[in-house]
Amino acid sequence: MLGRLYGIGLGPGDPELMTLKAVRCLQAAPVVAYFAKRGRRGHARAIADHAMPAHCEEVALEYPVTTEIALEDPAYAASLAPFYTEAAATLARHLAAGRDVALLCEGDPLFFGSFMHLYIRLRDDFPVTIVPGVSGMSGCWSAAGLPMSWGDDVVTILPGTLPAEVLTAKLRASDAAVIMKIGTNFVKIRAAVEAAGLLTDAVYVERGTMEGERVMPLADKRDGVAPYFSVILLPGHGRRP
Amino acid sequence: MLGRLYGIGLGPGDPELMTLKAVRCLQAAPVVAYFAKRGRRGHARAIADHAMPAHCEEVALEYPVTTEIALEDPAYAASLAPFYTEAAATLARHLAAGRDVALLCEGDPLFFGSFMHLYIRLRDDFPVTIVPGVSGMSGCWSAAGLPMSWGDDVVTILPGTLPAEVLTAKLRASDAAVIMKIGTNFVKIRAAVEAAGLLTDAVYVERGTMEGERVMPLADKRDGVAPYFSVILLPGHGRRP
Repeated sequence: MLGRLYGIGLGPGDPELMTLKAVRCLQAAPVVAYFAKRGRRGHARAIADHAMPAHCEEVALEYPVTTEIALEDPAYAASLAPFYTEAAATLARHLAAGRDVALLCEGDPLFFGSFMHLYIRLRDDFPVTIVPGVSGMSGCWSAAGLPMSWGDDVVTILPGTLPAEVLTAKLRASDAAVIMKIGTNFVKIRAAVEAAGLLTDAVYVERGTMEGERVMPLADKRDGVAPYFSVILLPGHGRRP
Repeated sequence: MLGRLYGIGLGPGDPELMTLKAVRCLQAAPVVAYFAKRGRRGHARAIADHAMPAHCEEVALEYPVTTEIALEDPAYAASLAPFYTEAAATLARHLAAGRDVALLCEGDPLFFGSFMHLYIRLRDDFPVTIVPGVSGMSGCWSAAGLPMSWGDDVVTILPGTLPAEVLTAKLRASDAAVIMKIGTNFVKIRAAVEAAGLLTDAVYVERGTMEGERVMPLADKRDGVAPYFSVILLPGHGRRP
């Protein structure tokens, strides 16, 4: 009997935004794995703390380096391949021995999740259950109380790593937008939003649903720094009876 | 003391995909409201059934007409205004009397949710808490086991009500896409996906996470009919170390 891999969406950060299914699947798991920076417990593990099984083997999958900037560099991305391959092999040993493995995923497992890198390496050999989660962006627009999309709005989700002129063009072509991966791209992104004529519409949300949550008009955020857990929201204005 | 309005995201359909917070807020509510077609219990009420408070007043907000097609007609959308205004007034009476009201929302409350029409009518007068939920599209791509977006993918969420040539152009300009609001637009949408050269990539999901769930390649779906709870997914192919 092979073990089953569970990709468990944990939601945007507030532990109470885990689903009932996430809690049930997690609590039944003999092995719980999670990504973390080297030497840290990691954000996913912290969200799940209240729901961890009483007895389980914990497997920390530690990223090879710890700097945020390097993670966005294509050269560094390539260097992640051996890490993901080794992490998949670690989980495969448990699964082959018949032990279910719950892999903790911030947000939703299949939406920009590290989970996917292990999933595509394991899904042909082992049964998998994916437990969807509340996305980080959903946590952010809820924290802002911002209705995002109405009627026939087109919604675009943009990585802040895109060139400024591409961001501006895509913002102009959308009814509503979410800009993710802000970090060191903040100054460029803010200028791109302004160039699209949308600065007064944009809302900046930092650490949505988490401790230290901040919501403010993007126009009011004038420093050049944004943490990893931040998004910029451009709400839609579609049909409103 | 005013009552508080809770917009409670119920997730994509599987009752177990409600969050812990949704269950807690719902179970504490003296008044539970939900949208429904006239004479039906409604989908939201059915999802929440397992978590309803033992004692509460239920308020069914019944849409004025019951045909699916008419809901997409702009003329009909305009006719919804008095319905939403009256529904907001109904909830306002409870809130003004100090009773909290939980309004059930399929998916996520602020992402194409009917909740928003009452929210914008009530938020200036009453305190509001929004509980984000797992989106319907997330339930669908999880049901399909389909990794949706990687690395720097641009993800576009498209209403199937758009003209075919607009859909095709937007699909060509995206790395990944979700097409919603399919229903009677199915034949047009399938042709638009094919015109974009993406038919072999596309996955059709019907009733994701619900009873009667179906997942199939869009290429294999040749009949012209799709229910309200269906989406078409175009997965991204971004950076994969």
